[in-house]
Amino acid sequence: MTDSVKYLLDETRIPKHWYNLMADLPSPPPPVLHPGTLQPVGPDDLAPLFPMALIMQEVSTDREVEIPGPVRDIYRQWRPSPLFRARRLEKALQTPARIYYKYEGVSPAGSHKPNTAVAQAFYNKEAGVKRISTETGAGQWGSSLAFAGALFGLEIQVFMVKVSYNQKPYRRALMETYGARCIASPSMETNFGRALLAKSPDNNGSLGIAISEAVEVAASREDTKYALGSVLNHVLLHQTVVGQEAIAQMELANDYPDVIVGCTGGGSNFAGIAFPFLGAQLRGGRKVRIIAVEPAACPSLTRGRYAYDFGDTGQMTPLAKMHTLGSAFMPPGFHAGGLRYHGMAPLVSHIKELGLIEARAYHQVSCFEAGVLFARNEGIVPAPEANHAVKGAIDEALRCKESGTSKAILFNLCGHGHFDMQAYTDYFAGKLTDQHYDEKELAMALAGLPSVPEPA
Amino acid sequence: MTDSVKYLLDETRIPKHWYNLMADLPSPPPPVLHPGTLQPVGPDDLAPLFPMALIMQEVSTDREVEIPGPVRDIYRQWRPSPLFRARRLEKALQTPARIYYKYEGVSPAGSHKPNTAVAQAFYNKEAGVKRISTETGAGQWGSSLAFAGALFGLEIQVFMVKVSYNQKPYRRALMETYGARCIASPSMETNFGRALLAKSPDNNGSLGIAISEAVEVAASREDTKYALGSVLNHVLLHQTVVGQEAIAQMELANDYPDVIVGCTGGGSNFAGIAFPFLGAQLRGGRKVRIIAVEPAACPSLTRGRYAYDFGDTGQMTPLAKMHTLGSAFMPPGFHAGGLRYHGMAPLVSHIKELGLIEARAYHQVSCFEAGVLFARNEGIVPAPEANHAVKGAIDEALRCKESGTSKAILFNLCGHGHFDMQAYTDYFAGKLTDQHYDEKELAMALAGLPSVPEPA
Repeated sequence: MTDSVKYLLDETRIPKHWYNLMADLPSPPPPVLHPGTLQPVGPDDLAPLFPMALIMQEVSTDREVEIPGPVRDIYRQWRPSPLFRARRLEKALQTPARIYYKYEGVSPAGSHKPNTAVAQAFYNKEAGVKRISTETGAGQWGSSLAFAGALFGLEIQVFMVKVSYNQKPYRRALMETYGARCIASPSMETNFGRALLAKSPDNNGSLGIAISEAVEVAASREDTKYALGSVLNHVLLHQTVVGQEAIAQMELANDYPDVIVGCTGGGSNFAGIAFPFLGAQLRGGRKVRIIAVEPAACPSLTRGRYAYDFGDTGQMTPLAKMHTLGSAFMPPGFHAGGLRYHGMAPLVSHIKELGLIEARAYHQVSCFEAGVLFARNEGIVPAPEANHAVKGAIDEALRCKESGTSKAILFNLCGHGHFDMQAYTDYFAGKLTDQHYDEKELAMALAGLPSVPEPA
Repeated sequence: MTDSVKYLLDETRIPKHWYNLMADLPSPPPPVLHPGTLQPVGPDDLAPLFPMALIMQEVSTDREVEIPGPVRDIYRQWRPSPLFRARRLEKALQTPARIYYKYEGVSPAGSHKPNTAVAQAFYNKEAGVKRISTETGAGQWGSSLAFAGALFGLEIQVFMVKVSYNQKPYRRALMETYGARCIASPSMETNFGRALLAKSPDNNGSLGIAISEAVEVAASREDTKYALGSVLNHVLLHQTVVGQEAIAQMELANDYPDVIVGCTGGGSNFAGIAFPFLGAQLRGGRKVRIIAVEPAACPSLTRGRYAYDFGDTGQMTPLAKMHTLGSAFMPPGFHAGGLRYHGMAPLVSHIKELGLIEARAYHQVSCFEAGVLFARNEGIVPAPEANHAVKGAIDEALRCKESGTSKAILFNLCGHGHFDMQAYTDYFAGKLTDQHYDEKELAMALAGLPSVPEPA
């Protein structure tokens, strides 16, 4: 039997630093602007929300940022994560391509999110913070921060999009098991939430609304800071342990990727696997095609505008230049909840503008089809978000088959689907359909983008 | 920060053989009897149900049984599994005890069950079998065999206890994702199921009924064999990879367990962690206290009779001498579905009779309390079954605290609880209560035990 192969590193190979792509870019991304003054924000503007160590990482241009000992100690519970050559999948596809995947589902929360959750919890603890407020959509991020908060003795308060809060009680139970407090958003705990509920008591919430609530809580309490699970530079930075390990593991396999595929919601998973390889390329190393895969129902990179926008619905956050569908855009309900965000990380948006990466959008039914094929051959059931990467990798492998070329394709399997079996149930029952946004609503959301003069 | 420590082995340390406790026992367990003749069964009697290689393992007294290459190749996906020193939990308990746990939740199905599922699928494939029928309660075993069947290209047909089939659609979805066919039991697909449904159309099923159905299908079809996820000698044998790795990992930690704790349903998880250490003791090595923890609502080892009994409700299986509550016993509905079986593995029962192990029973609320404490300190949410072992280990650690002695306590964390969050939801909502069986019903079930004369 042709069998799949695991490439494992020992604990001493957990990266000692995070890799900062900023150091190797031909040009820096546009500055983040204060929503009132439209001037670039400084560290002090962000101080109410984040501990200074994370703010300094947000603006750092150092190539390497040292990973603190206590963070590495916790990483050791599941890192280095394994990298596999998917030989059984290759055989099923009858492709000459060599398919590799890095697997982040081995973390206690079942996804890549703890890579940054642990780091953020550490820096907050160091700064004397008592409580972190955050938002979560499907719950991957909320449960990861709850896990990290438990280890560092921090109170975690999670605003969970109300529709998910009601439909996904299991993710909520996971957060509560870790000791976090989980609140349906919009809630009566913030001015923004109360105002929304006064207007529409049945408001089901959105990620943008939940961000507004979490930010409001952090901004108004001395002992409380805010944490975001994606989008920001420091979050992307923390995920680069994934790609750094993958570089070492591809060496073990005596191979190097021709193509890298990552799914993109806010951009942190994608950055984690891609940035270290992209950095090597920018420093004169081998060129690699990098493909960002996003949901066709929320296609910021492929259909959004590259413009300054708010990160939240309440328009409380600073303005970042990014590929956005507009902060008022409400994506339709599809199962990859972790990819339902109106904007893309500024850093990912910037390298897309620089032509360093490609982007592609898929509808969900074909992604689940790919995920089931993967599960039956590789034995791991992917999260709906990860299915987008699986689909992207399979499409590349089938292209190799057509052209008779043997390329090395690497993707990040960012999480397992054990919390998402309702989606698979729906898929097998034929109830899963592709979701489409309303073109008029998209046009309206884009028309509502804030007006920001080009900086000098 | 005091941090927990992981002891990892590289792939070359995956055991090359399974360890057979039979070789080291002071006396063999009583023979399994044919239900018609009451004479010891021979290999031919079992041939309709199992491939000959597994039957030979069932009766083998060889100390070592070689693990076939293709099985080890698949084990490599997640083995060797990690062993952790739970220092954060120790600190929370303020105990001088040293708590170690082996973690089997890293397998693709999230539990220890694939250790035997892969082996059983391999031997069936080798024997030219096309289809395996089996039963499942909560779904851990069914999903593990579905996983193994997918890798070997075998059809898997799972009779799932109807109440679980309806209440746990996610485990069913997992089996279907791996390509297995899942049938609510009692079903219209077997004579036994049809007869039951004719009498009581609302019958919600039980593990004993599902076994009867799966056995009937295998016995009546040439191309189909049967597989069991616990209880039998060869199943316990396959799980010994767990304990063998743990021995090597305790060496890495420069320590040796004074106490081993395992939860017991059918007995395979317990055997997996305990038998290799017990074997070492029997061969003259260091003595270790071994504690089997079972649910107080289904307490075969602590309240059952050591007697010959059927493995199933339909009384189709051979008779095995074991601690049993009677094959007619219907345990109340508690959350650790994997521990709801009326009997205990004959081999585990035998060593209990020999005084080589202790047994203890816990009600579920205290087990969930222990599981939540574990999750908040060690970051892993245990399955409800595993919570019994966690509770047993914590109790031992607290005893060390009282007596001021520092013992090494090792337990097997046999699976994660990601599929069992409803139970945690109920726990936090205060809806989880201890379940009690009816003493009269137990007495009746025990009175109904088959009458078997003592063998000469």
